[in-house]
Amino acid sequence: MDLTRIIETIVGQMRDADDRGVVASYIPELAKIDPARFGIAIATADGRMVKGGDADTGFSIQSISKVFALTLALGKVGDQLWKRVGREPSGSAFNSIVQLEREAGIPRNPFINAGAIVIADINLAGHRPREAIGEQLRFLHYLTEDDSIAVDNAVARSETETGFRNIALANYMRAFGNIAQPVDLVLGTYFHQCAIEMSCSQLALAGRFLMLGGAHPAGGRVVSERRARRICALMLTCGHYDASGDFAYRIGMPGKSGVGGGILAIVPGVASIAVWSPGLNETGNSHLGTVALERLADATGWSVFSARAFS
Amino acid sequence: MDLTRIIETIVGQMRDADDRGVVASYIPELAKIDPARFGIAIATADGRMVKGGDADTGFSIQSISKVFALTLALGKVGDQLWKRVGREPSGSAFNSIVQLEREAGIPRNPFINAGAIVIADINLAGHRPREAIGEQLRFLHYLTEDDSIAVDNAVARSETETGFRNIALANYMRAFGNIAQPVDLVLGTYFHQCAIEMSCSQLALAGRFLMLGGAHPAGGRVVSERRARRICALMLTCGHYDASGDFAYRIGMPGKSGVGGGILAIVPGVASIAVWSPGLNETGNSHLGTVALERLADATGWSVFSARAFS
Amino acid sequence: MDLTRIIETIVGQMRDADDRGVVASYIPELAKIDPARFGIAIATADGRMVKGGDADTGFSIQSISKVFALTLALGKVGDQLWKRVGREPSGSAFNSIVQLEREAGIPRNPFINAGAIVIADINLAGHRPREAIGEQLRFLHYLTEDDSIAVDNAVARSETETGFRNIALANYMRAFGNIAQPVDLVLGTYFHQCAIEMSCSQLALAGRFLMLGGAHPAGGRVVSERRARRICALMLTCGHYDASGDFAYRIGMPGKSGVGGGILAIVPGVASIAVWSPGLNETGNSHLGTVALERLADATGWSVFSARAFS
Amino acid sequence: MDLTRIIETIVGQMRDADDRGVVASYIPELAKIDPARFGIAIATADGRMVKGGDADTGFSIQSISKVFALTLALGKVGDQLWKRVGREPSGSAFNSIVQLEREAGIPRNPFINAGAIVIADINLAGHRPREAIGEQLRFLHYLTEDDSIAVDNAVARSETETGFRNIALANYMRAFGNIAQPVDLVLGTYFHQCAIEMSCSQLALAGRFLMLGGAHPAGGRVVSERRARRICALMLTCGHYDASGDFAYRIGMPGKSGVGGGILAIVPGVASIAVWSPGLNETGNSHLGTVALERLADATGWSVFSARAFS
Repeated sequence: MDLTRIIETIVGQMRDADDRGVVASYIPELAKIDPARFGIAIATADGRMVKGGDADTGFSIQSISKVFALTLALGKVGDQLWKRVGREPSGSAFNSIVQLEREAGIPRNPFINAGAIVIADINLAGHRPREAIGEQLRFLHYLTEDDSIAVDNAVARSETETGFRNIALANYMRAFGNIAQPVDLVLGTYFHQCAIEMSCSQLALAGRFLMLGGAHPAGGRVVSERRARRICALMLTCGHYDASGDFAYRIGMPGKSGVGGGILAIVPGVASIAVWSPGLNETGNSHLGTVALERLADATGWSVFSARAFS
Repeated sequence: MDLTRIIETIVGQMRDADDRGVVASYIPELAKIDPARFGIAIATADGRMVKGGDADTGFSIQSISKVFALTLALGKVGDQLWKRVGREPSGSAFNSIVQLEREAGIPRNPFINAGAIVIADINLAGHRPREAIGEQLRFLHYLTEDDSIAVDNAVARSETETGFRNIALANYMRAFGNIAQPVDLVLGTYFHQCAIEMSCSQLALAGRFLMLGGAHPAGGRVVSERRARRICALMLTCGHYDASGDFAYRIGMPGKSGVGGGILAIVPGVASIAVWSPGLNETGNSHLGTVALERLADATGWSVFSARAFS
Repeated sequence: MDLTRIIETIVGQMRDADDRGVVASYIPELAKIDPARFGIAIATADGRMVKGGDADTGFSIQSISKVFALTLALGKVGDQLWKRVGREPSGSAFNSIVQLEREAGIPRNPFINAGAIVIADINLAGHRPREAIGEQLRFLHYLTEDDSIAVDNAVARSETETGFRNIALANYMRAFGNIAQPVDLVLGTYFHQCAIEMSCSQLALAGRFLMLGGAHPAGGRVVSERRARRICALMLTCGHYDASGDFAYRIGMPGKSGVGGGILAIVPGVASIAVWSPGLNETGNSHLGTVALERLADATGWSVFSARAFS
Repeated sequence: MDLTRIIETIVGQMRDADDRGVVASYIPELAKIDPARFGIAIATADGRMVKGGDADTGFSIQSISKVFALTLALGKVGDQLWKRVGREPSGSAFNSIVQLEREAGIPRNPFINAGAIVIADINLAGHRPREAIGEQLRFLHYLTEDDSIAVDNAVARSETETGFRNIALANYMRAFGNIAQPVDLVLGTYFHQCAIEMSCSQLALAGRFLMLGGAHPAGGRVVSERRARRICALMLTCGHYDASGDFAYRIGMPGKSGVGGGILAIVPGVASIAVWSPGLNETGNSHLGTVALERLADATGWSVFSARAFS
């Protein structure tokens, strides 16, 4: 199996695709992105990086940031975190408020918006928003060994001005006592975290610790082996909102999508994969990104459900 | 790692456990089962069978039958099946009717009751109920190489007499045109399928094709490699109703539970595992069965999210 | 105010109306009715009958029967009835099952289908279905002083064959223990009750006891003054399903509609009104019937919210 | 019927009642009120005022203010208002957000919190919050002929600091485009409107225009006869949140309750009634206030559903 050739083929197919999905319009700054863009980058367990298309163009990672924010929060409060957030698929859209009313302000999981806002509240505790964002950027610099990753302030501003649903979610949880810091500071942290800009190459590097059972490729541990497995489990069951089951069925990899068109997917022991194409499908996930991952899975046989040996 | 010793330890711990959950009472025949029972059986990819406790005592497989019924239905109608059933976690209880109203009679997935009733309707097409059940039993005989597996008619009768919610679900879907055969025949098929009696040993044998990427250990294919992966994906995201996310997080194996207290869990490439203990936890899954699988996962490192090599 | 002239004007306007709504199609027998039909009949407190259009043509009273069935059931079990049915507007469609799941099988009010099925269960207790229907017909004969009112068996059969949602509702409530008799007998009673055929004239006569504070115009009491008021209150808040608030706002009379296109409306102390036109609006109530009642209310000033003196 | 004696009897019974409900605790300033208080005042159509107990003690009118705010808003935008707010009972609690998600940011009616916030947005248009509140106070001064009515600023502050659910509701509707002014200004207006302090006597005077078919007792019209009827209809179907049906059934008067323990009830043509007792029942309405109104209705026969003549 020649991974380079597989990637070349996929990049060619994606470049020529007619149906490219629809670029998200509810964050004005994101609506400006060219739907013709497509990039892919794969960091392998044996230390290679294979990439194609716009793999080195930065884009807004949006909800993919929730994976790194969750990892940080688990490092701070451990399993106490699960008293404030569930770990079940939500069965509803990423910004649904219905479930919160039925379940007394406890979000279903850390990857829907409400859950990620609680995680932001945890990460903010004892800090100013600027410090909390700084901590996240330093974490990404450490994971990628690349200090250039930063927040796109135009996007952050754009989200702040139009994020009425997220303001509603945060205040709603505050009414139930599940937000401890002032709502505007929590949301400031959350909106800036979502506005972090990264390329596919950077994202694939950042995901390596999940591929490597929690280890940093340069040595040392980012998280325990068990925690790496568990974060992957959450990505598989909850990483694509109300299309998580379909993604698991068709692609079989833990993944997390963002409304900016990026997807981070992990094949434990094998690969950390990032794809990007800004047009979304009707479930709010990157259309060509999903298609590309499905072709990659078919060509490589990569899936957590493949019959393969424990070493 | 000595699997025999691990199993011995777990069986000892489960025998002495104080909190054993609560035996399901809504099917009168099941309420009679002794909560002290516990069994476990593991069929490994290298052809061994390791077992302990009441591994050879038969019990009502109930919803675990949905895995085999789905496999048969996919064999008959292929991906057409997904026009009538979704493949997303439901975010609600196994017998919820709310989602059906919102989504026009299309059940969320084939493992909640509504979905399994649609599958029964597919399997019944062109047959009488007796023939449809016979086909399922023959499929299990073929998978286990054991012709003694049969329906417990007392349990089937008990379900028929008290299954008002399932009658409601079936008629509700019929109103939307998503049940094609007469409702009483479909439910007759469904209730008898749920009343199939198997032991842990038999269940572990029946699950081997999912461990082996679709192959029958005696040679030949039960399903394609891709279909085996996909059934595993559905088990992981939807196999434990509203506790599927938690099961994936803690145990990391595709699994399917039944209200009779059994759980079938698959480690692709490695093991097909069946546990049984009749007491249920508050999410309706076997309490000690879940605990035992968690200890097994911790002791062996088995998880689809473990970093391990493709051979 | 010349009521005869007002009625003539309204009948003329309704005869020429272009938008006549859509005849219900889910009960095949009802779908055959000519949408050009329109009738109105008003029985006044001073003993007059003013009518126009097809006032003497029989039609299927459908859910209007729920008013008379409730009156009978209250006569049998009194306020005990409210342990099994609520008396709040449902905020959802007439055949919704969602609310039942959230509220443990207790329907919101006796005028949605689920509530009316519980009422049918109460009226059936100790009887065979034929006797229960006979009792309802005798009650209508007594109220109207007209023994010709009967069930349209073709309609009853049509409902029985297609009433999957109602079968679902009944079994669902049975699962919660809120249906005591066998489900098929309860539904048999309910479907036949809905299939009673009456004309506007007959309906207006049948509603007189509600206009007269519970008294029978021929002498004696049908129900107490308080009960008559309370049944009117239920009609005002719950009589038009999810359009009850709008009906109260625009027309201001207690009313009960049926999917056959009839509406019974009461002006306490003044008038018992029946209108019929088979085309329905998007909330499932007679389109021209509602329009006609609004014009009648405007022309006469009749409304329970009018400022008028207690005598 | 001697109204003075009826009131004396009721006041005596309420003074001695053991079960007084529970004072609302979610607005800290309201939690301080003495649950022993009870007042009642009745302004009759013939110009009398009959009162008893703490009829002249001021209390926070809270949601009763929604009646006057709606009257003002209808005066400004007329029936255009109904494009932004429905007029159906909600079937859920006063602060539910679920219905908003299902129905695209259009609140069910103007008396649930979400609906009243839209009304506040309408009343605020073109004004500063201070002016909008001033307009409401002037309206109440005009209705009561009493210029002393004012906002209790301690209560307004208390609501502002703890009103997270209302902030959530407002931002949620803003996300759907159903709030036009800045959310904090709209809520400032809303919180101050709810914090208006009035006594039973003042409230009964303020409600006279609804009793008199829209006329001001001192001459002139407050609203048209039709609008007065329609506001009464909304009070009857939606005035007590999820207990509106029960209130209509037991008491049969258009009414609006507030979490401060007040209720305004109208008998068109006859009486404008205000009661106050701060302890609430489990549906969030004044416990003794409701009991007192039921006894008053029983003693007087007052009900919009009574059989009485049009003059």
